Amino acid sequence: MSGLRIRMDHIGIAVQSLEEAREKFARLLGLEPSPIEEVPEEGVRVSFFNVDGCKLELLEGTSPESPVRKYLEKRRSGVHHMSFALDGIDIADHFTRLKAQGVDVLGEGPTPGSRDTRVFFVHPKAAGGVLVEFSQSEGEVKPS
Amino acid sequence: MSGLRIRMDHIGIAVQSLEEAREKFARLLGLEPSPIEEVPEEGVRVSFFNVDGCKLELLEGTSPESPVRKYLEKRRSGVHHMSFALDGIDIADHFTRLKAQGVDVLGEGPTPGSRDTRVFFVHPKAAGGVLVEFSQSEGEVKPS
Repeated sequence: MSGLRIRMDHIGIAVQSLEEAREKFARLLGLEPSPIEEVPEEGVRVSFFNVDGCKLELLEGTSPESPVRKYLEKRRSGVHHMSFALDGIDIADHFTRLKAQGVDVLGEGPTPGSRDTRVFFVHPKAAGGVLVEFSQSEGEVKPS
Repeated sequence: MSGLRIRMDHIGIAVQSLEEAREKFARLLGLEPSPIEEVPEEGVRVSFFNVDGCKLELLEGTSPESPVRKYLEKRRSGVHHMSFALDGIDIADHFTRLKAQGVDVLGEGPTPGSRDTRVFFVHPKAAGGVLVEFSQSEGEVKPS
């Protein structure tokens, strides 16, 4: 794993009502949320709180097929995923290494995410019951 | 809320087996966990990963009455709490303000936590289904 540098980028919380959740967290944290954005390809509306150290992302599903909506069929709300930003190694190499170690990575390799990133996911059973996302910006430092 | 500064301190993940979870996260993150500590008064054994931005805490319940063990009766594993460190205002004032706003805070005010902190909790229903902890070190900057 030499070269790998990792930081927590955000925590994604699936909620029934984005408006209600934004209000609750604004009160708790004394912070203003970002404007609501719709991400049609993922079937969600989202809003962020720029908490120092680690952003909070609130997600509301907009279609019955959205993974967030399916998650909420089983529970009322809760942490949907943790997202880690990678640096120092190429994200494709991290994917390959984990797969070689028998970790239950999802898909065949990193795929394009939002804002010029590449992302992949790890099954919750490999990470304490939480869906884990790894991401890397296209512009990030690659390994030397 | 003037003066309030907040940062994400750690995410607490309740797990069935601390040893197994430590191994899984070490592999995913390429980091060494902290030595296992027992916290008898809370009925848990814990270990941390010092992820940049936000620590991860793995918690395993050691007694049937431990809140972590009760949490795991309902689900296999998952995020148990999010912990925010406060600065710029006294934690007791933050508690009082939230309570005045009708937020479902737990207890009658901050109580002593580990490592010279004062802490209080907010009910999951007030925070997207996640138990929220606020903490403040006794030595932290107080409001001017």
